[in-house]
Amino acid sequence: MKSNGFKKSVVVMGGGTGIYPVVSALKNLPVKVTTIIAVSDSGGSTGRIRDEFGFPPVGDLRQSLAALADTKSQEWIQKLLLYRFEKGNGLSGHNLGNLILTALQDMTGSTTEALNIARNVFRISGSVIPVTESSVQLEIHYTDGSIAIGEHILDEQTENPKTIASVRLTPDCVLNPAAAKALVEADHIIIGPGDFYASLLAVLTASGLKDAFKKTKAEITYILNLMTRHTQTKDMSALDHIIKIEEAIGRKLSHVLQNSEPVTSAMLSQYAEQHEYVVVDDTKSDDKRIIKASLLEKRKIDQSEADAVHRSLLRHDGEKLLPVLEKLLDL
Amino acid sequence: MKSNGFKKSVVVMGGGTGIYPVVSALKNLPVKVTTIIAVSDSGGSTGRIRDEFGFPPVGDLRQSLAALADTKSQEWIQKLLLYRFEKGNGLSGHNLGNLILTALQDMTGSTTEALNIARNVFRISGSVIPVTESSVQLEIHYTDGSIAIGEHILDEQTENPKTIASVRLTPDCVLNPAAAKALVEADHIIIGPGDFYASLLAVLTASGLKDAFKKTKAEITYILNLMTRHTQTKDMSALDHIIKIEEAIGRKLSHVLQNSEPVTSAMLSQYAEQHEYVVVDDTKSDDKRIIKASLLEKRKIDQSEADAVHRSLLRHDGEKLLPVLEKLLDL
Repeated sequence: MKSNGFKKSVVVMGGGTGIYPVVSALKNLPVKVTTIIAVSDSGGSTGRIRDEFGFPPVGDLRQSLAALADTKSQEWIQKLLLYRFEKGNGLSGHNLGNLILTALQDMTGSTTEALNIARNVFRISGSVIPVTESSVQLEIHYTDGSIAIGEHILDEQTENPKTIASVRLTPDCVLNPAAAKALVEADHIIIGPGDFYASLLAVLTASGLKDAFKKTKAEITYILNLMTRHTQTKDMSALDHIIKIEEAIGRKLSHVLQNSEPVTSAMLSQYAEQHEYVVVDDTKSDDKRIIKASLLEKRKIDQSEADAVHRSLLRHDGEKLLPVLEKLLDL
Repeated sequence: MKSNGFKKSVVVMGGGTGIYPVVSALKNLPVKVTTIIAVSDSGGSTGRIRDEFGFPPVGDLRQSLAALADTKSQEWIQKLLLYRFEKGNGLSGHNLGNLILTALQDMTGSTTEALNIARNVFRISGSVIPVTESSVQLEIHYTDGSIAIGEHILDEQTENPKTIASVRLTPDCVLNPAAAKALVEADHIIIGPGDFYASLLAVLTASGLKDAFKKTKAEITYILNLMTRHTQTKDMSALDHIIKIEEAIGRKLSHVLQNSEPVTSAMLSQYAEQHEYVVVDDTKSDDKRIIKASLLEKRKIDQSEADAVHRSLLRHDGEKLLPVLEKLLDL
């Protein structure tokens, strides 16, 4: 038993929106939750603030703080963090949570410190750590040798997207020491769910990350992507996803959490319009690492909740994840 | 002894900036503090939000919340409420505290409710109540029979300002029931300090105010203005101020707190450039209601702290007010 009644330390890595259901499920378990968040976002309210203030983008960090405030008693804190201005010249489209974090970045000069203060001010149990303190962009390397810079490029629709070979953060950056510490001290590390390159590999590429994964005794679980994305993971199978993640962290995954619930044909055709399909399962049936469970969220996404241009219709469900995570974490 | 270890309930009435030192002094005493704040402000960041969102202006309410958060442990809460954006297209000049209160007004549809949630979210001890829930403007009646609308008019410099006969709020509005309740239940009501017409009479004119003052058993103290203001109180003596306040509340004051500390000649000439002078003391020397004390603040005002166009250089000092208020409240 750890301090504060926590039985285990769990680190969740990815982007703010994708990992939301995991964080919100973990809030119901006796675990210390730390999220390590990609900061290479470059669009929306976050992008505007980023351009104007020069700080690392806060949109995903704010989403992650809000996920940690997902309790009845913190209803208004969560509402404040997620509130989006719909009026006001220059204000319209901005998220209040982004403005609060930007003000704290400005006053402290540090994104990590800004998040520490925010969680104290709002009494949020759990930590949110930017993967790096540097202001970085996602650099996308394609198999044809070309390079593009900026995460927003992955949202630009194109008929024949090039195949991504790898991504890195530019300029060169080091893993946030607070993130390294959290990884090394964790009992369990959960990667995802989230956009494969824009969120997951973006949070797994800072210099020093492999070292932290080498040192940690944590079990490592990857929550397998549900669907391909045309501009990111076209034609990638389940094993293709798994291998890329293992390359990034420099070691084998302990578990892969895979949805086994069928996607409705209506949903499939909606995705097919975007050239997006269920990730083909080519994992071996005797692979003990694979955990299959019904994980699909039923409700439609409320677009007003977030500022992402492209939102997945299919998401993992926090309530369905809860018992699966409870068993996985051996609580 | 009241609940929570409070010995008395004290209501402070005025504008956010003027009453700041009083509220901050009262934070050190075992009293329950409620502020009732004028909401007829029409300039600055507050004015922009007011024009764009249509809610009662929050600038003075935010200042008053920040005064109630004036404790060591709430340092960051206070900093967040007072933070002002200096960059960002459309954001520049906005106060974060104003944006937080505006978001809460938008979500709740009520300024009173917005303030209740803000004080819960930020664990602020004490209440801030807008004098009315209505969106109102200050209507200024001059002795020549002319009328002007908008508090900002009082900030417009003019060589020969007209003499103000009275002010009211337009459209007609009723005193916030929460304010009426606080007044009736108070042990002590403190009026000011603050701009005489823009803040003090603005908070003393809502319909129903005289009723509340009639019902309350509270002692009533007016903190006498230090200086005249060219566009508001030109040529008004101490007794002129006192009589106007007594007319507004419909009863006699219990005490008048008057500064007895001489103003430096450097300061006097700075004020004289604006045609502003020390309020002439024509009170009777045997008037037992008058309490004289050294009350002047020494430090210069940091202009970045607030968005008011015109700031007084001379202010009442919280630390000097503390022992005077302690004695006045008979604690």
